[in-house]
Amino acid sequence: MKITRRGLAKGLVAAGASAGISGLLHTEPQVEAEQFSWIGWMNVYPGVWKASIGMPESYTPVATRLIPAQAEAFAKLPRVDAPPLDAIRGQNTQRGCLVQLPLRPHEEIFGLGLQFLSFAQRGKKKVVRVNADPKFDSGDSHAPVPFYVTTEGIGILIDTARYATFYFGDARPSPMRAMDSVDSSSADPTYTHNIQDSDDGTVTVEIPRAAGVDVYLFAGPQMLDAVRRYNVFSGGGHIPPEWGLGFWYRVDARATQQSALSLAEEFRERKIPCDVVGLEPGWQTHAYSCTFAWNRNRFPDPDRFVQTAQEMHYKINLWEHAFVHPASPLFPSIRRHSGDYGVWGGLVPDFAGEPARTQFGEYHAKSFLDAGISGFKLDECDNSDYTGGWSFPECSVFPSGLDGEQMHNLFGLRYQMAIWNEYRKRGVPTLNLVRSSGALASPYPFVLYSDLYVHRDFIRALVNSGFSGLLWCPEVRDAASEEDLIRRLQSVVFSPLAMVNGWYIRNPPWKQLDRRLNNADQLRADWEKLEARCREIINWRMQLIPYLHAAFQRYAEDGTPPFRALVLDTPDDRRLRNVDDQYMIGDRMMVAPLFAGEPERRIVLPKGGWHDFWTGEAFQGASEIRLPESTERIPVYVKEGGVIPWADVGLFAGAPQTRRITARIYGDGSLPFSFTGEREALNLAWKNGQGTSNGTRGYDVYAWQKIG
Amino acid sequence: MKITRRGLAKGLVAAGASAGISGLLHTEPQVEAEQFSWIGWMNVYPGVWKASIGMPESYTPVATRLIPAQAEAFAKLPRVDAPPLDAIRGQNTQRGCLVQLPLRPHEEIFGLGLQFLSFAQRGKKKVVRVNADPKFDSGDSHAPVPFYVTTEGIGILIDTARYATFYFGDARPSPMRAMDSVDSSSADPTYTHNIQDSDDGTVTVEIPRAAGVDVYLFAGPQMLDAVRRYNVFSGGGHIPPEWGLGFWYRVDARATQQSALSLAEEFRERKIPCDVVGLEPGWQTHAYSCTFAWNRNRFPDPDRFVQTAQEMHYKINLWEHAFVHPASPLFPSIRRHSGDYGVWGGLVPDFAGEPARTQFGEYHAKSFLDAGISGFKLDECDNSDYTGGWSFPECSVFPSGLDGEQMHNLFGLRYQMAIWNEYRKRGVPTLNLVRSSGALASPYPFVLYSDLYVHRDFIRALVNSGFSGLLWCPEVRDAASEEDLIRRLQSVVFSPLAMVNGWYIRNPPWKQLDRRLNNADQLRADWEKLEARCREIINWRMQLIPYLHAAFQRYAEDGTPPFRALVLDTPDDRRLRNVDDQYMIGDRMMVAPLFAGEPERRIVLPKGGWHDFWTGEAFQGASEIRLPESTERIPVYVKEGGVIPWADVGLFAGAPQTRRITARIYGDGSLPFSFTGEREALNLAWKNGQGTSNGTRGYDVYAWQKIG
Repeated sequence: MKITRRGLAKGLVAAGASAGISGLLHTEPQVEAEQFSWIGWMNVYPGVWKASIGMPESYTPVATRLIPAQAEAFAKLPRVDAPPLDAIRGQNTQRGCLVQLPLRPHEEIFGLGLQFLSFAQRGKKKVVRVNADPKFDSGDSHAPVPFYVTTEGIGILIDTARYATFYFGDARPSPMRAMDSVDSSSADPTYTHNIQDSDDGTVTVEIPRAAGVDVYLFAGPQMLDAVRRYNVFSGGGHIPPEWGLGFWYRVDARATQQSALSLAEEFRERKIPCDVVGLEPGWQTHAYSCTFAWNRNRFPDPDRFVQTAQEMHYKINLWEHAFVHPASPLFPSIRRHSGDYGVWGGLVPDFAGEPARTQFGEYHAKSFLDAGISGFKLDECDNSDYTGGWSFPECSVFPSGLDGEQMHNLFGLRYQMAIWNEYRKRGVPTLNLVRSSGALASPYPFVLYSDLYVHRDFIRALVNSGFSGLLWCPEVRDAASEEDLIRRLQSVVFSPLAMVNGWYIRNPPWKQLDRRLNNADQLRADWEKLEARCREIINWRMQLIPYLHAAFQRYAEDGTPPFRALVLDTPDDRRLRNVDDQYMIGDRMMVAPLFAGEPERRIVLPKGGWHDFWTGEAFQGASEIRLPESTERIPVYVKEGGVIPWADVGLFAGAPQTRRITARIYGDGSLPFSFTGEREALNLAWKNGQGTSNGTRGYDVYAWQKIG
Repeated sequence: MKITRRGLAKGLVAAGASAGISGLLHTEPQVEAEQFSWIGWMNVYPGVWKASIGMPESYTPVATRLIPAQAEAFAKLPRVDAPPLDAIRGQNTQRGCLVQLPLRPHEEIFGLGLQFLSFAQRGKKKVVRVNADPKFDSGDSHAPVPFYVTTEGIGILIDTARYATFYFGDARPSPMRAMDSVDSSSADPTYTHNIQDSDDGTVTVEIPRAAGVDVYLFAGPQMLDAVRRYNVFSGGGHIPPEWGLGFWYRVDARATQQSALSLAEEFRERKIPCDVVGLEPGWQTHAYSCTFAWNRNRFPDPDRFVQTAQEMHYKINLWEHAFVHPASPLFPSIRRHSGDYGVWGGLVPDFAGEPARTQFGEYHAKSFLDAGISGFKLDECDNSDYTGGWSFPECSVFPSGLDGEQMHNLFGLRYQMAIWNEYRKRGVPTLNLVRSSGALASPYPFVLYSDLYVHRDFIRALVNSGFSGLLWCPEVRDAASEEDLIRRLQSVVFSPLAMVNGWYIRNPPWKQLDRRLNNADQLRADWEKLEARCREIINWRMQLIPYLHAAFQRYAEDGTPPFRALVLDTPDDRRLRNVDDQYMIGDRMMVAPLFAGEPERRIVLPKGGWHDFWTGEAFQGASEIRLPESTERIPVYVKEGGVIPWADVGLFAGAPQTRRITARIYGDGSLPFSFTGEREALNLAWKNGQGTSNGTRGYDVYAWQKIG
């Protein structure tokens, strides 16, 4: 069978019968014939197929997965009997291997992990390279994922740990036929760009160095179903412990046992809810690289520190990175299980291998988990390689056989497992922070954060995170203004993890925005006023927890991302393909964060009725709203008919107040709310002006409030 | 022989006797033994050595060079008998190949081609990847060169067309020994960075996909000698024709035969010197991709157009890019000699192969050279690959056997040859513009430009260009303010090519800075005043030509870059290692451009005496000057004793006025000036208050002016 390369773009969708057959690609005499094969799909799970090209590498995200697929959950997704994509083309080249998949006219593409700088991907070139500090829209991310999903309800995972390059329709075959003439009469010189929305086309993926690759296809029929199926395939979504959904505060890196506890006490006294206190590098005897040993100058009695915090209902989270300083007690046992290059004078553990994970994990278990530490913040695992030696080179070699490139793409998730596995073994719930992640991450109890700080990019990352099984914390550090602090705090309490990271300020930011003055304890004259505004916002977080918990439970049940882009719920609405600053939480709440200094806010409403969460004001769907800059609260909308549980404010998760629920009813209340946790259940239904909470356990539904 | 990897950094310089021997690298049990070999140097030219690792690829800059080394010129450089670097280490890996070269304490590194975003490179990671639009300091450049030079007087060329990664001392071996303890008493948590200036270390270069590579070593003894040797090895520096050193103006892309000629007439009438008029895309019937055919709607009689321009002493330069539209007369003959991917619907000529270069060149010769076109502007050859299909993918395949990655690194220079070769065959001098270049570029009659526009970055690129045999034009397009226009124009007339590129404005920028108003012919009320300021600046360029010509002649004689960083002339002055905003022209003139909006200008003076070029004011060297913002003229300094020829202003190169010379004498006039061109000579000496111009031909030295 001879097929011209030109034929690919035009002919592949129609070439249904060609699945499984292989042939030569004939690209006209100017280029030597290349070995392109047509590869058919093999079913691996309900609605999931695999196509194998050549000899895939042995170390890939799927081939070395540590968490199995959540096989029983596929039954909850729509049944799809045939692969929604015809055979694809694969080729081994001297550079590695190539995969080509067809695109339809108007088919839009999303995903590739935690992308900060763009949303809709068609027409773009992207490289899934781990890089902490993406400065332009190249695909670089601290959590890239070689998975994308399209508006045609198709999800594609390229199972590789390589820096694969995705050409999303912009790589076009060369023209074959001369034209007799061209219209040169236009007044302006013609600049013809390559790609038009109405073109069909090809996704071309180049995987460097690999002699083959497995491609996984996740069927819809809807785009959201394809994402669910990918998450279920990944092992299902993780439900955080309730305290993980509370408020987190990270203290000054120079904090001591005494100063950290006194800030914790202050929070309780000033009625600022908080569940987790995070320590930054100063708790260790040496950081950059790490000793993983308590600095007794600052923390003379760590056990007592943790115990005192626990008595106040706090969890303690410890900062670290993975690079092991020669003075660390871990050093001798990790040395043989490390790469050949160091970072900051420390070892790079070979987390791809079980020995390094086990040594690393067991040390942490013995030293920290068993002493009551609730989790960690895993920093600097995301390859700041252009920052001057802030990570290991791609030419590194590890005992497990991986090189540095592969290790970068896997380091984040394997590091997570080194830590998580000890909690798993003990049956202790945990929630952690991490700077890097990758494919198949949904079951891991980790939320991403980063050193970046553009508020709009943070929200775009949040919107993108839901396409690829990731959770993202748009943490609050400093703020350019009071408004900026408020807007960032409003966003973060409506995110997967609500955290203020005060690692370089002695006092909470609401007491003094200016870093220098803050560290000199020179507080704002009116700090109590700003604190009160911040307290109100943090209170919202506590009130939201039952609703959030339900959204995460759905994540665990069928893979539905708790935070996600609007286009996932309404893929047929073309307007939503560019909405990268609004997102859904759960099935009925939509958030449209405000950004300091922007004069007005355009909000796109999907079809159906909507209500302002705060006031109940009703809006027609399929429309737009423009809010003035003066809008005080973060714009949140609820679907017509939505019932939302809203808890009383407790100072920590599980405090008695958090079990007292007001049911907020929007419109006709026809969308009942239901949540069944391990020990608790909350069911809220509204009919004919009457609320019922049948089957509710562990909650007190004490008010029914018709909002709009 | 067993050597620990740790031993490399410490031991290599001292391991002189090991040249040529090979051994296993033993990196401790945690990593399997790797095949590292010690490679000795083989002499190839005086002061030039080569070390071959493995089996180098067949298509590399040196292996497929089209211009031979300027062998006779090596005799003009200092003799060096032994390689100034001991054996290096090489290794083939599954990823490609690795080269390791030792660094000494305080050894600083410069080069890698047209770097916009950094100057001194030690401690950084850089990838020599062709990318038109570098947004951060990754090594990406539209003219990367795998050549660097160090303050130890060592030049290194990695002869590859691959995207090689350079770790300039930041990739460190993993630590081997545990430490008993660490000092944890400091008040602040310790952040230890990897690299210290006083460390020795290693340059590690990874060449992807190659099973070997040739490394070329260029000896000093001084850094400038190493650069000269590299340029002589490249084939020597190019001397532009005199008109190329005049003033260039590119007209509106929508210009017609009539409008272009009337602007040319206006320049003559308004006494604005100009040698070259450049046409932009509108001259073709189709651009993006290109037909390379005159658009008769705009240019009904191209021959007459060129002839009329020539009668006014203008040269005509034509814009194009390489991608061949199907309606181009070139299409049928290029089709078989093109890559398998297209760009903007056009063919990508396989310029690595002679057939494409010949077809492309001969078409241009017949259609344009023979009709009097003086040169071209070769646009878009620099891989705007993240701009959505603006170039061919790295997985492209070309008939010559290159892939897209190799082609990107070679495309610029090979495209240059396709054009230049036709001028060479005819013995017609030419000077052209190009958007991409690479290794061994010094003999090519091309000056780089780009779409970027940050003035400081433009000057940094100019300062960096001299390390790698490149010429750079910091062209003037638009300006944020009158001051910005003046500062940019002042810079460009003290650069290799003095050009205003008005491709999107109907009138010269001095008539109206605002683009919209300019195109509506709504001129500034006081445009004649601004024009007068600009005219004065452009006049300087014409006055500078004899001095410039001499600097270029030196380039051709012994490879001395006519424009270069101060550190090249004074490598022992540590202060100059960070001076990326001042540069030398020739052997006695130093320029320190001003940037609009900066409140003051710090200028670093190297050792020795200096004079203000304009006023003659004398300054002690080894000092600093601070100029106020209000400084009107561009700061230019002349070395104590320098004699500078300063021509009268002609409206075009070779006009009678340009032969009338004033000799400017600074200080004691002890540095005579000498230039011998093909037909002309200019010799200026000053002794005891008396000037002599013995042997001068074709110039009239009519004044001797003691300036300071």
